Amino acid sequence: MKSAPFLFLLGLLGLVTAQTQDPALLDLLRENPDLLSLLLQSNEHRAPLVKPNVVLLVADDMGSGDLTSYGHPTQEAGFIDKMAAEGLRFTNGYVGDAVCTPSRSAIMTGRLPVRIGTFGETRVFLPWTKTGLPKSELTIAEAMKEAGYATGMVGKWHLGINENSSTDGAHLPFNHGFDFVGHNLPFTNSWSCDDTGLHKDFPDTQRCYLYVNATLVSQPYQHKGLTQLFTDDALGFIEDNHADPFFLYVAFAHMHTSLFSSDDFSCTSRRGRYGDNLLEMHDAVQKIVDKLEENNISENTIIFFISDHGPHREYCEEGGDASIFRGGKSHSWEGGHRIPYIVYWPGTISPGISNEIVTSMDIIATAADLGGTTLPTDRIYDGKSIKDVLLEGSASPHSSFFYYCKDNLMAVRVGKYKAHFRTQRVRSQNEYGLECAGGFPLEDYFDCNDCEGDCVTEHDPPLLFDLHRDPGEAYPLEACGHEDVFLTVKSTVEEHKAALVKGTPLLDSFDHSIVPCCNPANGCICNYVHEPGMPECYQDQVATAARHYRP
Amino acid sequence: MKSAPFLFLLGLLGLVTAQTQDPALLDLLRENPDLLSLLLQSNEHRAPLVKPNVVLLVADDMGSGDLTSYGHPTQEAGFIDKMAAEGLRFTNGYVGDAVCTPSRSAIMTGRLPVRIGTFGETRVFLPWTKTGLPKSELTIAEAMKEAGYATGMVGKWHLGINENSSTDGAHLPFNHGFDFVGHNLPFTNSWSCDDTGLHKDFPDTQRCYLYVNATLVSQPYQHKGLTQLFTDDALGFIEDNHADPFFLYVAFAHMHTSLFSSDDFSCTSRRGRYGDNLLEMHDAVQKIVDKLEENNISENTIIFFISDHGPHREYCEEGGDASIFRGGKSHSWEGGHRIPYIVYWPGTISPGISNEIVTSMDIIATAADLGGTTLPTDRIYDGKSIKDVLLEGSASPHSSFFYYCKDNLMAVRVGKYKAHFRTQRVRSQNEYGLECAGGFPLEDYFDCNDCEGDCVTEHDPPLLFDLHRDPGEAYPLEACGHEDVFLTVKSTVEEHKAALVKGTPLLDSFDHSIVPCCNPANGCICNYVHEPGMPECYQDQVATAARHYRP
Repeated sequence: MKSAPFLFLLGLLGLVTAQTQDPALLDLLRENPDLLSLLLQSNEHRAPLVKPNVVLLVADDMGSGDLTSYGHPTQEAGFIDKMAAEGLRFTNGYVGDAVCTPSRSAIMTGRLPVRIGTFGETRVFLPWTKTGLPKSELTIAEAMKEAGYATGMVGKWHLGINENSSTDGAHLPFNHGFDFVGHNLPFTNSWSCDDTGLHKDFPDTQRCYLYVNATLVSQPYQHKGLTQLFTDDALGFIEDNHADPFFLYVAFAHMHTSLFSSDDFSCTSRRGRYGDNLLEMHDAVQKIVDKLEENNISENTIIFFISDHGPHREYCEEGGDASIFRGGKSHSWEGGHRIPYIVYWPGTISPGISNEIVTSMDIIATAADLGGTTLPTDRIYDGKSIKDVLLEGSASPHSSFFYYCKDNLMAVRVGKYKAHFRTQRVRSQNEYGLECAGGFPLEDYFDCNDCEGDCVTEHDPPLLFDLHRDPGEAYPLEACGHEDVFLTVKSTVEEHKAALVKGTPLLDSFDHSIVPCCNPANGCICNYVHEPGMPECYQDQVATAARHYRP
Repeated sequence: MKSAPFLFLLGLLGLVTAQTQDPALLDLLRENPDLLSLLLQSNEHRAPLVKPNVVLLVADDMGSGDLTSYGHPTQEAGFIDKMAAEGLRFTNGYVGDAVCTPSRSAIMTGRLPVRIGTFGETRVFLPWTKTGLPKSELTIAEAMKEAGYATGMVGKWHLGINENSSTDGAHLPFNHGFDFVGHNLPFTNSWSCDDTGLHKDFPDTQRCYLYVNATLVSQPYQHKGLTQLFTDDALGFIEDNHADPFFLYVAFAHMHTSLFSSDDFSCTSRRGRYGDNLLEMHDAVQKIVDKLEENNISENTIIFFISDHGPHREYCEEGGDASIFRGGKSHSWEGGHRIPYIVYWPGTISPGISNEIVTSMDIIATAADLGGTTLPTDRIYDGKSIKDVLLEGSASPHSSFFYYCKDNLMAVRVGKYKAHFRTQRVRSQNEYGLECAGGFPLEDYFDCNDCEGDCVTEHDPPLLFDLHRDPGEAYPLEACGHEDVFLTVKSTVEEHKAALVKGTPLLDSFDHSIVPCCNPANGCICNYVHEPGMPECYQDQVATAARHYRP
């Protein structure tokens, strides 16, 4: 909005003209130029490319192979698969890290966690971590506010809670550019929040609480109905803001363990509890798109659907699937960083499959580009606008990708080649299964989520794979004959490191007095009714748990 | 055709009326009843459901995860994926055996190999095997001839060649109901037919020959151009028979090793040689469908696309991918028996994904059903008509499936459960990769393709999996709590065995004098120009081969 109003309007007229498909509307516009300013005020009548709404949907811990559209053979298809079929489905979608906090910090800022500081001895923000996503980082919400967008979020945050007291909420979403914050989990859905009695006798009150904006509303929380709360808030936000450009971030608690679904979805999927969870998420996404259509703004809205990283494979049937990719959550193998990545914009993005490299960090840059604002130039962005990839099928702006674990550069992708400097031990799914009686995980654990140490192997020369021929990273290439690749890898890493200013590590600063507690006199329990119990169709897992459970 | 002509015509009128979308045509029919008999003579104007043409496309050794539509992340999409998107894509498609000969005998007859006799110490017909598919078996070609169809085939046969001399062709396709037999490989494309110099210095003349019908036309054969020869013959057959109902069987040499592609396809896929092969097959399939459209008979033609079994995983990058499924070619794990299975019939079959169990043995029963003939009642058919599954989305007629290795019942599927009585050792793809420098297979081998012996484990009680929750067969269920499943398994197997009349084992009767030889004086070489050499893009594999090859 830096050009003179007249030029701006002229440009918009061009845009409207280029985008609209309705000749009658064009004639009308030519004859009544005043109409244009009216049109600009109304979402319903904005041309699709004029400040489109941006909806960002993020699944938790969902693998690259869990959706029907990405090849899962027993999962029922659902609305997200329809979006994949009618939108652009990417096969080379990446996230900035393979665990929650750093990955989400990258999604929010467009920058690698190593720059932000979302690393440390610990890999994620805990309820007693005093820090949060730094205020010096510009979030996608803040960027879109600058572009004149209303901003909203619901769901999982996991980028910090309190700083100095158990109630200051210093790091909550409202402090990061979100005007509207509905029901949200400031920490994370986790194994220890299980309220069914399957994994825990009673949810861990230290880790499990539900907020509305900055207000703690239940501790622990009921899983049933959680997705409905998030969805209702999202629908309300759309309804309230449908006339003007908005940015909405919906961070689902699905598919993280502990798995859960509302009664309507329990025992509905042939795939069991995981499938039930996914069907509930499909339904929530459909409700969001239905609401856009109801308000006649679906063609004015670009929707991104991604996961925050790969599946937690140690959890077996509760952990999801990485398809052909090796490893999963916490790994720098493709199974950790490669995700489902779908972009849906009916009328503007043509249906298709794209093999271009795109990352979760591109979303902020693309949204800013579409929203007509620019990102600061005082910092390095790892994400880039993929507007042309989406709209015109252009080549990816990325020729390389960096795989970090904490602040360790584990691997780099250069074109089709991936060079591992360090690899984590990963097991086959059958081997993980040895710890899972009947597919049911008995422990909350990672086999190897370290970035250095006993389960990590160093490689010099790097372990090299051709990801086009060998996406499963099963067949290391010989060093001999690939000298040129190693030279490119070396120069790419040198260039990256020369420009890298590491952030201050944020994840090891603890104060247990800041853990949220709604009512210390009641053991930090509020608005919670403990009703353990599982539907009939899950009884064989309950029986397995009863025989094997290690508390 | 057992009803009186009048009733038959009346029934057809009903069918035409029900199927045609064109009211003008209906009026015309009502006013000119004689038109009907004219219409019946012409393929172009037959209602889709009146004696539709049947095209059966079979890929060789292609895994359930190799197509984009089944989730492969780097393989380019092609025409077969378009058929999957616009037709019915099955996730529970099975074949009657996990190696070529028995699987193809099951495709041709609709019966399990254990009934036919296509088993023995050896698992496939060799060029010196005196036997072939028994004449007592009714093939799909013979069934369709009875229904008044013209029948044709091109490509790989692998169901027997000669019986008493090197030229009698006693077991070739023309003896099994195929009126037209174009270019064909009576044995198989194989590792030892490599004419590039990559795997073999010179192709094995004892195993590599190309026929036209019963005439040996080149020995060994050139891989380049092979698919074009098959395709041209298929197109010619369609052109010649477009006016009348026909059955066409196209058995591609792709994706069996040795991999090959014509110049037009070499170095075109990011996935390398495997991808090039697949792109050539996509193109061939497209040419076949184009030819149907050119003749205005695509809506009168049902097309089945399947593979003969899972991928040869020991071949690493040359072997294809089984996606989430365990094992591959020769295994009774899902990776061996589960295949891509696509049915395409524009205008009649609605697009979708089906999780119903269907098998390659259903094709003959379905084709007979659609063609208006019945199969003999003096034998047990393992295949059943899936017409209602295809046309009406009905449930599968199968509640069980039997996994054989030779004449050993290895496993049974009952509903969603699979019980293994014996399992073969399978390795992770990374472990197979240890024998594959840079993904390139150094040997023509199976790690464990036995049905009994050292690499086979017996299970009592059976090893039980829930294929819906755990399609990867990674998490055996506990016997405790599944007593009812074991009872169903037991009764299902008892019922099956009570009715089973094993065929006479056919695969161990050898006579080396019957091996085809076009010209003994010339070392059995005819019409062959040896031009080893690989395109530039494959040079790294050539270099790997040069360093590692074990002759």
